[in-house]
Amino acid sequence: MKIAVLGTGGGARSHIAKLLELGHEVAVGTRDPQATLARTEPDMMGNPPFRQFLAEHPGVTLLTFGEAAATADGPVINGIDGHNAVAALTPIAGALADKTLIDYAVPFVYQHDSEHPWPTPWGVMPKLDPCDTDSLGERIQRALPDTKVVKSFVTQEQATVVDPQSVGDGDHTMFVAGDHADAKRRATELLKSYGWRDVLDLGPLVCARGMEMYAHLHSAIGFGLGQQFGGHFGIKVVR
Amino acid sequence: MKIAVLGTGGGARSHIAKLLELGHEVAVGTRDPQATLARTEPDMMGNPPFRQFLAEHPGVTLLTFGEAAATADGPVINGIDGHNAVAALTPIAGALADKTLIDYAVPFVYQHDSEHPWPTPWGVMPKLDPCDTDSLGERIQRALPDTKVVKSFVTQEQATVVDPQSVGDGDHTMFVAGDHADAKRRATELLKSYGWRDVLDLGPLVCARGMEMYAHLHSAIGFGLGQQFGGHFGIKVVR
Repeated sequence: MKIAVLGTGGGARSHIAKLLELGHEVAVGTRDPQATLARTEPDMMGNPPFRQFLAEHPGVTLLTFGEAAATADGPVINGIDGHNAVAALTPIAGALADKTLIDYAVPFVYQHDSEHPWPTPWGVMPKLDPCDTDSLGERIQRALPDTKVVKSFVTQEQATVVDPQSVGDGDHTMFVAGDHADAKRRATELLKSYGWRDVLDLGPLVCARGMEMYAHLHSAIGFGLGQQFGGHFGIKVVR
Repeated sequence: MKIAVLGTGGGARSHIAKLLELGHEVAVGTRDPQATLARTEPDMMGNPPFRQFLAEHPGVTLLTFGEAAATADGPVINGIDGHNAVAALTPIAGALADKTLIDYAVPFVYQHDSEHPWPTPWGVMPKLDPCDTDSLGERIQRALPDTKVVKSFVTQEQATVVDPQSVGDGDHTMFVAGDHADAKRRATELLKSYGWRDVLDLGPLVCARGMEMYAHLHSAIGFGLGQQFGGHFGIKVVR
Protein backbone atom coordinates (compact mmCIF):
# COMPACT_ATOMS: atom_id res chain seq x y z
CA MET A 1 0.00 0.00 0.00
CA LYS A 2 0.94 3.64 -0.30
CA ILE A 3 0.87 4.94 3.25
CA ALA A 4 1.56 8.51 4.33
CA VAL A 5 3.10 9.43 7.66
CA LEU A 6 2.72 13.07 8.68
CA GLY A 7 5.54 14.20 10.94
CA THR A 8 9.22 13.43 11.34
CA GLY A 9 9.56 12.93 15.12
CA GLY A 10 10.51 9.76 16.95
CA GLY A 11 7.02 8.24 16.82
CA ALA A 12 6.67 8.94 13.08
CA ARG A 13 10.07 7.34 12.48
CA SER A 14 8.98 4.15 14.25
CA HIS A 15 6.05 3.82 11.86
CA ILE A 16 8.06 4.77 8.75
CA ALA A 17 10.73 2.13 9.47
CA LYS A 18 8.15 -0.58 10.22
CA LEU A 19 6.03 0.23 7.16
CA LEU A 20 9.09 0.02 4.89
CA GLU A 21 9.98 -3.33 6.48
CA LEU A 22 6.43 -4.53 5.68
CA GLY A 23 6.94 -3.56 2.02
CA HIS A 24 4.74 -0.47 1.85
CA GLU A 25 5.53 2.66 -0.12
CA VAL A 26 5.93 5.44 2.43
CA ALA A 27 5.55 9.17 1.82
CA VAL A 28 6.50 11.35 4.76
CA GLY A 29 4.92 14.77 5.21
CA THR A 30 6.58 17.73 6.87
CA ARG A 31 5.75 21.43 7.02
CA ASP A 32 8.76 22.49 4.90
CA PRO A 33 10.79 19.66 3.35
CA GLN A 34 13.79 21.91 2.55
CA ALA A 35 13.96 23.12 6.16
CA THR A 36 13.64 19.54 7.46
CA LEU A 37 16.50 18.41 5.18
CA ALA A 38 18.64 21.41 6.14
CA ARG A 39 18.62 20.58 9.88
CA THR A 40 21.89 19.20 11.20
CA GLU A 41 21.11 19.15 14.92
CA PRO A 42 19.11 16.57 16.91
CA ASP A 43 15.45 17.57 17.40
CA MET A 44 13.94 18.64 20.76
CA MET A 45 13.50 15.01 21.81
CA GLY A 46 17.09 14.12 20.97
CA ASN A 47 16.35 12.29 17.69
CA PRO A 48 19.14 12.58 15.09
CA PRO A 49 18.60 14.98 12.16
CA PHE A 50 15.92 13.62 9.82
CA ARG A 51 18.26 13.59 6.83
CA GLN A 52 20.35 11.00 8.68
CA PHE A 53 17.20 8.89 9.20
CA LEU A 54 16.40 9.26 5.47
CA ALA A 55 19.91 8.14 4.52
CA GLU A 56 19.43 5.04 6.66
CA HIS A 57 15.95 4.32 5.23
CA PRO A 58 16.18 4.51 1.44
CA GLY A 59 12.96 4.65 -0.52
CA VAL A 60 11.15 7.17 1.68
CA THR A 61 9.78 10.22 -0.10
CA LEU A 62 9.81 13.50 1.84
CA LEU A 63 7.01 15.88 0.81
CA THR A 64 4.82 18.61 2.27
CA PHE A 65 1.96 17.47 4.55
CA GLY A 66 -0.58 17.89 1.74
CA GLU A 67 1.54 16.25 -0.96
CA ALA A 68 2.27 13.26 1.26
CA ALA A 69 -1.41 12.81 2.20
CA ALA A 70 -2.39 13.00 -1.48
CA THR A 71 -0.17 10.02 -2.38
CA ALA A 72 -1.85 7.61 0.05
CA ASP A 73 -4.12 4.81 -1.10
CA GLY A 74 -3.98 3.31 2.39
CA PRO A 75 -4.16 5.00 5.79
CA VAL A 76 -2.55 8.31 6.62
CA ILE A 77 -0.84 8.29 10.02
CA ASN A 78 -0.88 11.57 11.93
CA GLY A 79 2.38 11.96 13.78
CA ILE A 80 2.13 15.75 14.13
CA ASP A 81 2.35 16.71 17.79
CA GLY A 82 -0.97 17.31 19.51
CA HIS A 83 -0.38 21.01 20.05
CA ASN A 84 -0.07 21.72 16.31
CA ALA A 85 -2.18 18.98 14.73
CA VAL A 86 -5.46 20.83 14.03
CA ALA A 87 -3.67 23.89 12.59
CA ALA A 88 -1.44 21.74 10.37
CA LEU A 89 -4.20 19.41 9.15
CA THR A 90 -7.02 21.89 8.47
CA PRO A 91 -5.36 23.41 5.34
CA ILE A 92 -4.89 19.94 3.78
CA ALA A 93 -8.50 18.81 4.28
CA GLY A 94 -8.82 18.33 0.51
CA ALA A 95 -5.87 15.93 0.30
CA LEU A 96 -7.28 13.97 3.26
CA ALA A 97 -10.87 13.75 1.97
CA ASP A 98 -12.30 10.21 1.99
CA LYS A 99 -9.09 8.89 3.57
CA THR A 100 -8.52 7.06 6.84
CA LEU A 101 -6.48 9.22 9.21
CA ILE A 102 -5.04 7.37 12.21
CA ASP A 103 -4.30 9.85 14.97
CA TYR A 104 -2.11 8.97 17.94
CA ALA A 105 -1.38 12.47 19.24
CA VAL A 106 -1.88 13.46 22.88
CA PRO A 107 -2.81 17.14 23.29
CA PHE A 108 -0.04 18.02 25.74
CA VAL A 109 0.23 21.67 26.62
CA TYR A 110 3.75 22.96 26.04
CA GLN A 111 5.51 24.24 29.09
CA HIS A 112 8.73 25.83 27.92
CA ASP A 113 10.58 26.55 31.11
CA SER A 114 13.40 24.85 32.94
CA GLU A 115 11.05 23.15 35.38
CA HIS A 116 8.81 21.85 32.57
CA PRO A 117 10.86 20.86 29.52
CA TRP A 118 9.08 19.93 26.32
CA PRO A 119 6.50 18.48 26.25
CA THR A 120 6.48 17.13 29.78
CA PRO A 121 9.12 15.48 31.87
CA TRP A 122 8.52 11.87 32.80
CA GLY A 123 7.01 11.55 36.24
CA VAL A 124 5.51 15.04 36.22
CA MET A 125 1.96 14.93 35.02
CA PRO A 126 1.25 16.57 31.68
CA LYS A 127 -1.52 19.07 31.24
CA LEU A 128 -3.96 18.27 28.44
CA ASP A 129 -6.03 20.59 26.24
CA PRO A 130 -8.66 19.57 25.27
CA CYS A 131 -9.57 17.20 28.07
CA ASP A 132 -12.59 15.47 29.62
CA THR A 133 -15.42 17.02 27.59
CA ASP A 134 -13.64 16.94 24.23
CA SER A 135 -10.58 15.32 22.68
CA LEU A 136 -8.01 16.09 20.04
CA GLY A 137 -9.34 13.18 17.98
CA GLU A 138 -12.83 14.72 17.93
CA ARG A 139 -11.38 18.16 17.13
CA ILE A 140 -9.50 16.75 14.16
CA GLN A 141 -12.66 14.96 12.97
CA ARG A 142 -14.65 18.22 13.21
CA ALA A 143 -11.90 20.07 11.29
CA LEU A 144 -11.86 17.34 8.60
CA PRO A 145 -15.50 16.27 8.16
CA ASP A 146 -14.75 14.36 4.93
CA THR A 147 -11.94 12.33 6.51
CA LYS A 148 -12.42 9.13 8.53
CA VAL A 149 -10.54 9.70 11.76
CA VAL A 150 -9.49 6.73 13.88
CA LYS A 151 -7.90 7.29 17.28
CA SER A 152 -5.40 4.56 18.03
CA PHE A 153 -1.76 3.85 19.00
CA VAL A 154 -2.18 6.41 21.83
CA THR A 155 -1.75 4.20 24.86
CA GLN A 156 1.85 3.17 24.26
CA GLU A 157 5.13 4.48 22.97
CA GLN A 158 5.19 4.22 19.17
CA ALA A 159 8.33 2.02 19.39
CA THR A 160 6.19 -0.65 21.10
CA VAL A 161 3.14 0.05 18.91
CA VAL A 162 5.17 -1.09 15.88
CA ASP A 163 6.79 -3.95 17.82
CA PRO A 164 4.21 -5.35 20.24
CA GLN A 165 6.21 -8.58 20.63
CA SER A 166 8.92 -6.63 22.44
CA VAL A 167 6.66 -6.38 25.51
CA GLY A 168 5.37 -9.51 27.27
CA ASP A 169 5.46 -11.61 24.07
CA GLY A 170 2.84 -9.29 22.61
CA ASP A 171 0.17 -10.29 25.13
CA HIS A 172 -1.30 -6.82 25.63
CA THR A 173 -4.15 -4.75 24.21
CA MET A 174 -4.38 -1.99 21.60
CA PHE A 175 -7.48 0.18 21.21
CA VAL A 176 -9.22 1.81 18.25
CA ALA A 177 -12.10 4.30 18.32
CA GLY A 178 -13.86 6.18 15.55
CA ASP A 179 -17.15 6.91 13.86
CA HIS A 180 -16.34 5.03 10.64
CA ALA A 181 -16.35 1.23 10.78
CA ASP A 182 -14.41 0.76 7.52
CA ALA A 183 -11.64 3.07 8.72
CA LYS A 184 -11.40 1.21 12.04
CA ARG A 185 -11.15 -2.03 10.07
CA ARG A 186 -8.24 -0.57 8.06
CA ALA A 187 -6.47 0.59 11.22
CA THR A 188 -7.00 -2.84 12.79
CA GLU A 189 -5.55 -4.58 9.74
CA LEU A 190 -2.49 -2.36 9.94
CA LEU A 191 -2.13 -3.16 13.65
CA LYS A 192 -2.39 -6.89 12.95
CA SER A 193 0.35 -6.53 10.35
CA TYR A 194 2.45 -4.92 13.12
CA GLY A 195 1.87 -8.07 15.19
CA TRP A 196 -1.06 -7.09 17.43
CA ARG A 197 -3.33 -9.98 18.42
CA ASP A 198 -5.74 -8.11 20.75
CA VAL A 199 -7.19 -4.98 19.12
CA LEU A 200 -10.27 -3.76 21.02
CA ASP A 201 -12.78 -1.51 19.26
CA LEU A 202 -13.98 0.89 21.96
CA GLY A 203 -16.73 2.33 19.79
CA PRO A 204 -17.32 5.92 18.63
CA LEU A 205 -14.68 8.64 18.48
CA VAL A 206 -15.87 10.10 21.80
CA CYS A 207 -13.80 7.26 23.31
CA ALA A 208 -10.68 9.14 22.15
CA ARG A 209 -11.11 11.12 25.39
CA GLY A 210 -10.29 8.07 27.46
CA MET A 211 -7.30 7.16 25.30
CA GLU A 212 -5.82 10.65 25.48
CA MET A 213 -6.54 11.09 29.21
CA TYR A 214 -4.87 7.74 29.87
CA ALA A 215 -1.59 9.67 29.24
CA HIS A 216 -1.64 10.56 32.95
CA LEU A 217 -1.91 6.97 34.14
CA HIS A 218 0.61 5.88 31.51
CA SER A 219 3.10 8.45 32.82
CA ALA A 220 2.44 7.35 36.39
CA ILE A 221 2.89 3.66 35.56
CA GLY A 222 6.23 4.43 33.87
CA PHE A 223 7.17 6.40 36.98
CA GLY A 224 6.12 3.49 39.22
CA LEU A 225 8.16 1.04 37.16
CA GLY A 226 11.19 3.30 37.47
CA GLN A 227 11.26 3.87 33.70
CA GLN A 228 12.32 7.27 32.51
CA PHE A 229 11.06 9.02 29.38
CA GLY A 230 9.93 6.37 26.88
CA GLY A 231 8.31 3.62 28.94
CA HIS A 232 8.52 0.04 27.72
CA PHE A 233 5.33 -1.66 28.88
CA GLY A 234 1.78 -2.31 27.75
CA ILE A 235 -1.63 -2.79 29.30
CA LYS A 236 -3.71 -5.85 28.75
CA VAL A 237 -7.46 -5.86 29.21
CA VAL A 238 -8.02 -9.00 31.29
CA ARG A 239 -11.55 -10.35 30.89
CA MET B 1 -8.21 -5.14 62.74
CA LYS B 2 -10.89 -2.54 63.33
CA ILE B 3 -11.58 -1.10 59.89
CA ALA B 4 -14.03 1.70 59.11
CA VAL B 5 -15.89 1.97 55.82
CA LEU B 6 -17.44 5.37 55.12
CA GLY B 7 -20.49 5.08 52.88
CA THR B 8 -23.27 2.58 52.33
CA GLY B 9 -23.38 2.28 48.53
CA GLY B 10 -22.62 -0.74 46.40
CA GLY B 11 -18.84 -0.25 46.49
CA ALA B 12 -18.81 0.18 50.27
CA ARG B 13 -20.91 -2.97 50.66
CA SER B 14 -18.38 -4.97 48.65
CA HIS B 15 -15.65 -3.96 51.09
CA ILE B 16 -17.80 -4.45 54.21
CA ALA B 17 -18.74 -8.00 53.21
CA LYS B 18 -15.17 -8.95 52.30
CA LEU B 19 -13.69 -7.43 55.47
CA LEU B 20 -16.16 -9.38 57.64
CA GLU B 21 -15.24 -12.55 55.75
CA LEU B 22 -11.56 -11.84 56.54
CA GLY B 23 -12.41 -11.58 60.23
CA HIS B 24 -12.11 -7.82 60.73
CA GLU B 25 -14.36 -5.72 62.94
CA VAL B 26 -16.18 -3.34 60.63
CA ALA B 27 -17.74 0.01 61.55
CA VAL B 28 -19.73 1.64 58.77
CA GLY B 29 -20.14 5.41 58.66
CA THR B 30 -23.13 7.21 57.22
CA ARG B 31 -24.31 10.81 57.40
CA ASP B 32 -27.37 10.00 59.51
CA PRO B 33 -27.63 6.41 60.77
CA GLN B 34 -31.33 6.74 61.66
CA ALA B 35 -32.17 7.99 58.18
CA THR B 36 -30.11 5.21 56.59
CA LEU B 37 -31.94 2.60 58.70
CA ALA B 38 -35.34 4.14 57.93
CA ARG B 39 -34.97 3.76 54.16
CA THR B 40 -37.10 1.02 52.64
CA GLU B 41 -36.48 1.68 48.95
CA PRO B 42 -33.49 0.66 46.80
CA ASP B 43 -30.87 3.45 46.46
CA MET B 44 -30.19 5.41 43.25
CA MET B 45 -27.98 2.63 41.91
CA GLY B 46 -30.58 -0.05 42.60
CA ASN B 47 -28.95 -1.50 45.72
CA PRO B 48 -31.44 -2.91 48.26
CA PRO B 49 -32.14 -0.83 51.40
CA PHE B 50 -29.09 -0.81 53.67
CA ARG B 51 -31.02 -2.30 56.59
CA GLN B 52 -31.52 -5.41 54.49
CA PHE B 53 -27.77 -5.57 53.87
CA LEU B 54 -27.18 -5.18 57.63
CA ALA B 55 -29.60 -8.00 58.41
CA GLU B 56 -27.65 -10.23 56.02
CA HIS B 57 -24.27 -9.19 57.49
CA PRO B 58 -24.49 -9.47 61.28
CA GLY B 59 -21.72 -7.86 63.32
CA VAL B 60 -21.52 -4.60 61.37
CA THR B 61 -21.87 -1.42 63.46
CA LEU B 62 -23.61 1.53 61.79
CA LEU B 63 -22.41 4.90 63.10
CA THR B 64 -21.95 8.49 61.91
CA PHE B 65 -18.97 9.15 59.61
CA GLY B 66 -16.93 10.59 62.52
CA GLU B 67 -17.86 7.86 65.01
CA ALA B 68 -17.01 5.13 62.53
CA ALA B 69 -13.64 6.70 61.66
CA ALA B 70 -12.82 7.04 65.36
CA THR B 71 -13.18 3.28 65.96
CA ALA B 72 -10.54 2.31 63.36
CA ASP B 73 -7.13 0.98 64.35
CA GLY B 74 -6.55 -0.08 60.73
CA PRO B 75 -7.34 1.73 57.48
CA VAL B 76 -10.44 3.81 56.91
CA ILE B 77 -11.97 3.22 53.47
CA ASN B 78 -13.66 6.20 51.85
CA GLY B 79 -16.70 5.04 49.96
CA ILE B 80 -18.42 8.43 49.94
CA ASP B 81 -19.18 9.46 46.36
CA GLY B 82 -16.66 11.81 44.80
CA HIS B 83 -19.07 14.71 44.53
CA ASN B 84 -19.62 14.84 48.32
CA ALA B 85 -16.39 13.46 49.73
CA VAL B 86 -14.51 16.65 50.65
CA ALA B 87 -17.56 18.23 52.30
CA ALA B 88 -18.34 15.05 54.26
CA LEU B 89 -14.75 14.37 55.37
CA THR B 90 -13.60 17.87 56.34
CA PRO B 91 -15.72 18.06 59.53
CA ILE B 92 -14.31 14.73 60.77
CA ALA B 93 -10.65 15.64 60.27
CA GLY B 94 -10.04 15.06 64.00
CA ALA B 95 -11.36 11.50 63.93
CA LEU B 96 -9.20 10.81 60.85
CA ALA B 97 -5.98 12.35 62.21
CA ASP B 98 -2.93 10.03 61.92
CA LYS B 99 -5.04 7.40 60.15
CA THR B 100 -4.68 5.82 56.73
CA LEU B 101 -7.58 6.82 54.50
CA ILE B 102 -7.94 4.77 51.32
CA ASP B 103 -9.91 6.75 48.77
CA TYR B 104 -11.39 5.13 45.68
CA ALA B 105 -13.83 7.85 44.64
CA VAL B 106 -13.98 9.27 41.12
CA PRO B 107 -15.09 12.93 41.04
CA PHE B 108 -17.95 12.48 38.60
CA VAL B 109 -20.07 15.56 38.05
CA TYR B 110 -23.72 14.81 38.60
CA GLN B 111 -25.94 15.32 35.61
CA HIS B 112 -29.50 14.98 36.79
CA ASP B 113 -31.49 15.03 33.60
CA SER B 114 -33.11 12.39 31.48
CA GLU B 115 -30.25 12.35 28.99
CA HIS B 116 -27.63 12.03 31.76
CA PRO B 117 -28.90 9.88 34.62
CA TRP B 118 -26.86 9.63 37.81
CA PRO B 119 -23.89 9.64 37.83
CA THR B 120 -23.27 8.81 34.20
CA PRO B 121 -24.77 6.26 31.90
CA TRP B 122 -22.46 3.54 30.68
CA GLY B 123 -21.02 4.37 27.31
CA VAL B 124 -21.48 8.11 27.71
CA MET B 125 -18.31 9.68 29.04
CA PRO B 126 -18.48 11.14 32.53
CA LYS B 127 -17.33 14.65 33.27
CA LEU B 128 -14.77 14.95 36.04
CA ASP B 129 -14.14 17.80 38.49
CA PRO B 130 -11.33 18.17 39.42
CA CYS B 131 -9.39 16.87 36.45
CA ASP B 132 -5.95 17.05 34.83
CA THR B 133 -4.28 19.65 37.06
CA ASP B 134 -5.71 18.39 40.36
CA SER B 135 -7.46 15.30 41.69
CA LEU B 136 -10.00 14.42 44.33
CA GLY B 137 -7.33 12.43 46.17
CA GLU B 138 -5.12 15.52 46.44
CA ARG B 139 -8.12 17.66 47.49
CA ILE B 140 -8.94 15.23 50.28
CA GLN B 141 -5.28 15.23 51.40
CA ARG B 142 -5.25 19.04 51.50
CA ALA B 143 -8.52 19.06 53.49
CA LEU B 144 -7.10 16.49 55.94
CA PRO B 145 -3.43 17.38 56.37
CA ASP B 146 -3.01 15.10 59.41
CA THR B 147 -4.43 12.05 57.59
CA LYS B 148 -2.42 9.74 55.33
CA VAL B 149 -4.40 9.53 52.10
CA VAL B 150 -3.83 6.63 49.71
CA LYS B 151 -5.54 6.60 46.34
CA SER B 152 -6.31 3.05 45.29
CA PHE B 153 -9.11 0.65 44.17
CA VAL B 154 -10.11 3.31 41.57
CA THR B 155 -9.40 1.47 38.36
CA GLN B 156 -11.96 -1.31 38.79
CA GLU B 157 -15.42 -1.99 40.10
CA GLN B 158 -15.26 -2.57 43.86
CA ALA B 159 -16.83 -6.01 43.38
CA THR B 160 -13.67 -7.07 41.51
CA VAL B 161 -11.35 -5.11 43.82
CA VAL B 162 -12.46 -7.37 46.70
CA ASP B 163 -12.42 -10.47 44.48
CA PRO B 164 -9.54 -10.15 42.00
CA GLN B 165 -9.60 -13.89 41.30
CA SER B 166 -12.97 -13.46 39.60
CA VAL B 167 -11.22 -11.84 36.60
CA GLY B 168 -8.54 -13.70 34.63
CA ASP B 169 -7.50 -15.81 37.63
CA GLY B 170 -6.39 -12.61 39.37
CA ASP B 171 -3.65 -11.89 36.82
CA HIS B 172 -4.18 -8.12 36.66
CA THR B 173 -2.75 -5.02 38.32
CA MET B 174 -3.91 -2.77 41.16
CA PHE B 175 -2.36 0.64 41.80
CA VAL B 176 -1.62 2.67 44.93
CA ALA B 177 -0.43 6.28 45.14
CA GLY B 178 0.17 8.58 48.09
CA ASP B 179 2.66 10.72 49.93
CA HIS B 180 3.00 8.42 52.97
CA ALA B 181 4.96 5.19 52.51
CA ASP B 182 3.60 3.51 55.67
CA ALA B 183 0.01 4.18 54.59
CA LYS B 184 0.68 2.74 51.12
CA ARG B 185 2.17 -0.32 52.81
CA ARG B 186 -1.01 -0.74 54.87
CA ALA B 187 -3.21 -0.38 51.77
CA THR B 188 -1.04 -2.89 49.91
CA GLU B 189 -1.32 -5.40 52.78
CA LEU B 190 -5.10 -5.05 52.70
CA LEU B 191 -5.07 -5.60 48.92
CA LYS B 192 -2.90 -8.71 49.30
CA SER B 193 -5.41 -10.05 51.86
CA TYR B 194 -8.09 -9.49 49.18
CA GLY B 195 -6.01 -11.72 46.87
CA TRP B 196 -4.07 -9.17 44.79
CA ARG B 197 -0.66 -10.39 43.62
CA ASP B 198 0.40 -7.37 41.51
CA VAL B 199 0.08 -4.09 43.44
CA LEU B 200 2.07 -1.33 41.74
CA ASP B 201 3.11 1.75 43.74
CA LEU B 202 2.85 4.64 41.27
CA GLY B 203 4.52 7.10 43.62
CA PRO B 204 3.22 10.37 45.10
CA LEU B 205 -0.44 11.33 45.42
CA VAL B 206 -0.25 13.45 42.26
CA CYS B 207 -0.59 10.10 40.47
CA ALA B 208 -4.20 10.02 41.70
CA ARG B 209 -4.92 12.21 38.65
CA GLY B 210 -4.10 9.36 36.30
CA MET B 211 -6.15 6.88 38.32
CA GLU B 212 -9.22 9.12 38.39
CA MET B 213 -8.92 10.18 34.74
CA TYR B 214 -8.67 6.52 33.75
CA ALA B 215 -12.43 6.44 34.46
CA HIS B 216 -12.95 7.54 30.84
CA LEU B 217 -10.90 4.70 29.35
CA HIS B 218 -12.44 2.26 31.83
CA SER B 219 -15.93 3.30 30.69
CA ALA B 220 -14.88 3.00 27.06
CA ILE B 221 -13.36 -0.46 27.56
CA GLY B 222 -16.57 -1.64 29.23
CA PHE B 223 -18.47 -0.20 26.29
CA GLY B 224 -16.13 -1.94 23.83
CA LEU B 225 -16.58 -5.26 25.62
CA GLY B 226 -20.35 -4.86 25.42
CA GLN B 227 -20.60 -4.75 29.22
CA GLN B 228 -23.22 -2.50 30.68
CA PHE B 229 -22.97 -0.61 33.96
CA GLY B 230 -20.57 -2.48 36.24
CA GLY B 231 -17.82 -3.85 34.00
CA HIS B 232 -16.15 -7.13 34.92
CA PHE B 233 -12.57 -6.84 33.70
CA GLY B 234 -9.17 -5.66 34.85
CA ILE B 235 -6.04 -4.19 33.35
CA LYS B 236 -2.67 -5.79 33.68
CA VAL B 237 0.54 -3.84 33.31
CA VAL B 238 2.58 -6.06 30.98
CA ARG B 239 6.33 -5.44 31.36
